[in-house]
Amino acid sequence: MMRMSKYYAPTLKEVPNDVEIKSHELLIRGGFIRKTASGVYTYLPLGTKVLKKIENIVREEMEKIGSQEILMPIIQPAEIWQQSGRWDDYGPEMMKLKDRHNRDFTLGPTHEEMITTIVKNELRSYKQLPISLFQIANKYRDEIRPRFGVLRAREFIMKDAYSFHNSEESLDETYEDFYRAYENILKRLGVDYRVVEADTGAIGGNKSHEFQVLAEYGESTIYYCDCGYYATDEKAESKLTFEVENEEEKEIKKVSTPDVKTIDDVANFLNSSKEKIIKSLLFKGRDGWVLALIRGDYDLNIAKLRGLLKDQTLEMGAPEEIKAEFGVETGFIGPVGIKKDNLKIVGDLSIKGIKNGITGGMEKDTHYVNVNLNRDFNVDIFADIRMVKKGEPCPKCGKPLKEAKGIEVGQVFKLGTKYSEKLNAYYTDEDGRSKPFIMGCYGWGVSRTLGAIVEQLHDDYGMLWPRSIAPFEIVIIPVSMKKPELVEKAEEIYNLLKDKYDVLYDDRDASPGFKFKDADLIGIPMKVVLGKKMKDGKVEVKLRYEKNAEEVEITESFDKLLEIIDKKLKEYDPKIYLNSIDKE
Amino acid sequence: MMRMSKYYAPTLKEVPNDVEIKSHELLIRGGFIRKTASGVYTYLPLGTKVLKKIENIVREEMEKIGSQEILMPIIQPAEIWQQSGRWDDYGPEMMKLKDRHNRDFTLGPTHEEMITTIVKNELRSYKQLPISLFQIANKYRDEIRPRFGVLRAREFIMKDAYSFHNSEESLDETYEDFYRAYENILKRLGVDYRVVEADTGAIGGNKSHEFQVLAEYGESTIYYCDCGYYATDEKAESKLTFEVENEEEKEIKKVSTPDVKTIDDVANFLNSSKEKIIKSLLFKGRDGWVLALIRGDYDLNIAKLRGLLKDQTLEMGAPEEIKAEFGVETGFIGPVGIKKDNLKIVGDLSIKGIKNGITGGMEKDTHYVNVNLNRDFNVDIFADIRMVKKGEPCPKCGKPLKEAKGIEVGQVFKLGTKYSEKLNAYYTDEDGRSKPFIMGCYGWGVSRTLGAIVEQLHDDYGMLWPRSIAPFEIVIIPVSMKKPELVEKAEEIYNLLKDKYDVLYDDRDASPGFKFKDADLIGIPMKVVLGKKMKDGKVEVKLRYEKNAEEVEITESFDKLLEIIDKKLKEYDPKIYLNSIDKE
Repeated sequence: MMRMSKYYAPTLKEVPNDVEIKSHELLIRGGFIRKTASGVYTYLPLGTKVLKKIENIVREEMEKIGSQEILMPIIQPAEIWQQSGRWDDYGPEMMKLKDRHNRDFTLGPTHEEMITTIVKNELRSYKQLPISLFQIANKYRDEIRPRFGVLRAREFIMKDAYSFHNSEESLDETYEDFYRAYENILKRLGVDYRVVEADTGAIGGNKSHEFQVLAEYGESTIYYCDCGYYATDEKAESKLTFEVENEEEKEIKKVSTPDVKTIDDVANFLNSSKEKIIKSLLFKGRDGWVLALIRGDYDLNIAKLRGLLKDQTLEMGAPEEIKAEFGVETGFIGPVGIKKDNLKIVGDLSIKGIKNGITGGMEKDTHYVNVNLNRDFNVDIFADIRMVKKGEPCPKCGKPLKEAKGIEVGQVFKLGTKYSEKLNAYYTDEDGRSKPFIMGCYGWGVSRTLGAIVEQLHDDYGMLWPRSIAPFEIVIIPVSMKKPELVEKAEEIYNLLKDKYDVLYDDRDASPGFKFKDADLIGIPMKVVLGKKMKDGKVEVKLRYEKNAEEVEITESFDKLLEIIDKKLKEYDPKIYLNSIDKE
Repeated sequence: MMRMSKYYAPTLKEVPNDVEIKSHELLIRGGFIRKTASGVYTYLPLGTKVLKKIENIVREEMEKIGSQEILMPIIQPAEIWQQSGRWDDYGPEMMKLKDRHNRDFTLGPTHEEMITTIVKNELRSYKQLPISLFQIANKYRDEIRPRFGVLRAREFIMKDAYSFHNSEESLDETYEDFYRAYENILKRLGVDYRVVEADTGAIGGNKSHEFQVLAEYGESTIYYCDCGYYATDEKAESKLTFEVENEEEKEIKKVSTPDVKTIDDVANFLNSSKEKIIKSLLFKGRDGWVLALIRGDYDLNIAKLRGLLKDQTLEMGAPEEIKAEFGVETGFIGPVGIKKDNLKIVGDLSIKGIKNGITGGMEKDTHYVNVNLNRDFNVDIFADIRMVKKGEPCPKCGKPLKEAKGIEVGQVFKLGTKYSEKLNAYYTDEDGRSKPFIMGCYGWGVSRTLGAIVEQLHDDYGMLWPRSIAPFEIVIIPVSMKKPELVEKAEEIYNLLKDKYDVLYDDRDASPGFKFKDADLIGIPMKVVLGKKMKDGKVEVKLRYEKNAEEVEITESFDKLLEIIDKKLKEYDPKIYLNSIDKE
């Protein structure tokens, strides 16, 4: 019997001090997780139960599409990462260690190198293809600023899968299988979600989709259109075009702009519009410095810049380093007169048409005005490196783009031959020739799902777990433990329900209000309450979000009770409930 | 449909070159595991399936005794280990790393510090006790010489549980619960096992039992007696006593013993018996050097020495270091004239009675003869620091001890207040006083179980999995894939069996002999073969270890087939079969 009095679920009344979003607060207060170190969590019994239920749904959907479960090591030898080039490229997010013999290992942030190395001498023939393998295991990413609880942790649980093919068509089919499996997972989880086109980032490859759980305070921004276009902010494009301005080119001048640093400052000081400013940003990557230019009223999209230059190590230059290397503060950097060996200048399409623009003067407290492309400075590459904005025309149909917030829980990638070529993973094709595997990879954030769901499904009283992953489906609450008639009946009902449902018995010697609050905080879909009405032989049955309980007679038999419980649990849908109150 | 042609189970004909024991060989050859680095393995689909089945049995038995599942981090902050004193004490087996902010972490080799830290501010009252929490997760121990495949790996899966109590009686009850749960696990796994008294080692505490799977080449030695006494070699004691020899003390003499180093050499050269030699061994620990003395014909028991001195860091001194620190090679070390600050001399009881003994001369190529205790040297502590030998009198009943080999899969410990005191984990007792938790801890080697079972249950053809954890229970083998009547019937039988059993369909275009060999190697309990007899409407059903198949008519209906399969699988017991052939 699962008795609350002996169940390790320490709930808290107070809001912990380092939480920034509701899901983090509720998971801590509800006794689901506890922080051990920054971005490192322990899952208490309630959290572990939900995690295991999520894992099972994910595992079942993987098995349905014929993916086979394996378990790869967390500690991975450096050699395979050196071979792929990611030992250095992955950056400081990779946690590294040495063993007692001084050999280098990483705590795997992902497993492309590992899986490719495993199969490369064992999958030899096209006859064995396609094949896909998955695992559910811990991953490590040393985030510079872990936050939002399990949503951005340094140690987290992922389902990662990898597929191997001898044709693009075969990859396409498996990619579709995973796409559908991920949608099935989200449907079974019972949340509102969107599938969006995504950037491939450090994983690489040439096509990717993200699976986003919608949430008001989600960390991802999605741009979408009723025509069916959905993309992350990193990936989103628009049909916006930029005309060449119809102005005479004036003489370039350097002007004094003391203490004028931000784009707004510059526009105000020079009495200009932000559209005239050519914003200049310095990035440092594998091959040195990159100067990126973009119109003053737009934001640069680093994912697009990284993708364009095929360099995932590109990061915004640190102010001190820029000062030291370029002899001027970041606020006064500009493309006119900038000098640096191997400096690459990338221009966003938005600057192509600017006439008589404004840029940094490459000297403290100065800016150039009347700056013109090709006369005063040159650009090595023009490309779209811009973040789109709400209202811009959809790249597919031209209608205004809309914006939403979400939390990424899954991502699928077409990798192509990136890893198989670097790690020499070849098979023999039907024609007898040796070819690199065509690969796909498919990640699902298992522990992240826990946070994402709470972020979408909660109200002022606590969490509202979908039935499929609720830690318990029903809690039985006698309003007093001092009345033997209530306690006896409660235990009888517990035994009646326990084989069919996941039931908790709140046998604590506490007030009914205290018990109700905990049940609401924890988010148990249904309460069966034994209270005053028991003198008339009635118990109360109530869904988490219902205002009024249904009274059920149990004097003669429990049939009616079982029927009501079954019916109500089948109807239970916190997503629909929350959407309805949002509209009120 | 689980088709062997698409199942990732790469079997090998050749014996891999670095294997020392049969289980390691078979798990590699059968395609269950692959080595990634020394002591670091990937579990392929077959291995993962068995692991998950073992995990489920372990989890169910934990839940039956009311233990609650949690999930603690693998990366643990150094601070809690510094507080318990084990950050330094644990030694080089502990894998350590630094995060990007230079903070120290360890990859947890065990979780006593972690669990104690988690509960210490949340379990406050005796009313919440007893409670036990368990997890199933990876552990890390940087073994100096990883070997035997998953039996001595550096990354491995463990179920670890921890219990908290307010009385010794309560700890005793929970200890008994785990003891019985562990026996249930072993019974469900279907192996021969023994429960033995064990040393508490680096975990500490005051009582411990190990659960050993018996195996001819097991790495643990067990001493036991028909009276019911069972102990590991580290823990075993005997009733053997040592009389003081009835000899006159002769004058001590230093004699030349050129190139005489081993105990056998010394005995031969000096024409003495080994019983006269006082073997001198130097150990280094937390508090400096320890000289341990034991009779020449016995082996020193380092676990007893560590327990005696309460110093788990004690290790045998390295020859070069001994040479440098004591000015003489290890072979000539002895208690007479040895000098070192803080040197502690521990004598085994076996040397107490030696008159006119022989020891190293503390000078190259010399020994002392006619050495006598208290006259020529002194001992700080006398204690039993000896390994017992087969045939010595049982410490309980005096009958001769027997010896067996086993592989440890589980261990239970009574920890007492060791960790709660060091980590300030207190609760408020019924009397209102604050007291440290009394704790127990309970480990089960999940991945180790895989190796232990194969080590016990295999024959010349491969593995013999117990049905409860077999990767598949039945394999359906058509002897040819070119005959549609066999293939059709095979698929019909597959669909008939798949909901009731875990079935594999060997649809590979290969010879029947090839398929039979793989099925035997992988250890599938039952084969259903569609071959020549199909012309008479008969399939063959055969258990893994049966010489002759049973022919079953399937023309009219499958009822008989289902009946035979059910009956045979219920009878299947590889343990009984292997014990019977051992006796032949």
